Amino acid sequence: MEVLKVSSRSVPNSVAGAIASVVRDEGAVEVQAIGAGAINQAVKAIAIARGYLTPVGVDLICIPTFANININGEDRTAIKMICEKR
Amino acid sequence: MEVLKVSSRSVPNSVAGAIASVVRDEGAVEVQAIGAGAINQAVKAIAIARGYLTPVGVDLICIPTFANININGEDRTAIKMICEKR
Repeated sequence: MEVLKVSSRSVPNSVAGAIASVVRDEGAVEVQAIGAGAINQAVKAIAIARGYLTPVGVDLICIPTFANININGEDRTAIKMICEKR
Repeated sequence: MEVLKVSSRSVPNSVAGAIASVVRDEGAVEVQAIGAGAINQAVKAIAIARGYLTPVGVDLICIPTFANININGEDRTAIKMICEKR
């Protein structure tokens, strides 16, 4: 599954466009975020993406889970949001 | 639908217990959060609630949308996350 990494500086509208595009083409996408600022942008992007997809008949749902990832040798807990068609 | 309001000081494990309980009993719950800190706690709580519900055969999904709410006469944009059984 394609992974979109979101940071606190990501623009929700741009991320939303990417989410909508991948879900439309491939059925699902994984959105990954670390930290409150990044998770905030990711959730806003998913809410916006729903608005892009609803008119084309796609009901977008999301499944948040934890993921342990390694950044520069340091273990971090990320939030992974699987976005897919219902 | 029952509404759970989450703040940046909410404890994700406690919110997760409430989400799991309402979803098990009523099939769905609305989780409301304003601001990055609150949204962060809400998403963590939903991820934890999935862990509570999966063993009892409930596949929890979430649908994030925007909501305009009024707090003390001031209009604020909240994030509303509908959590329900798939």
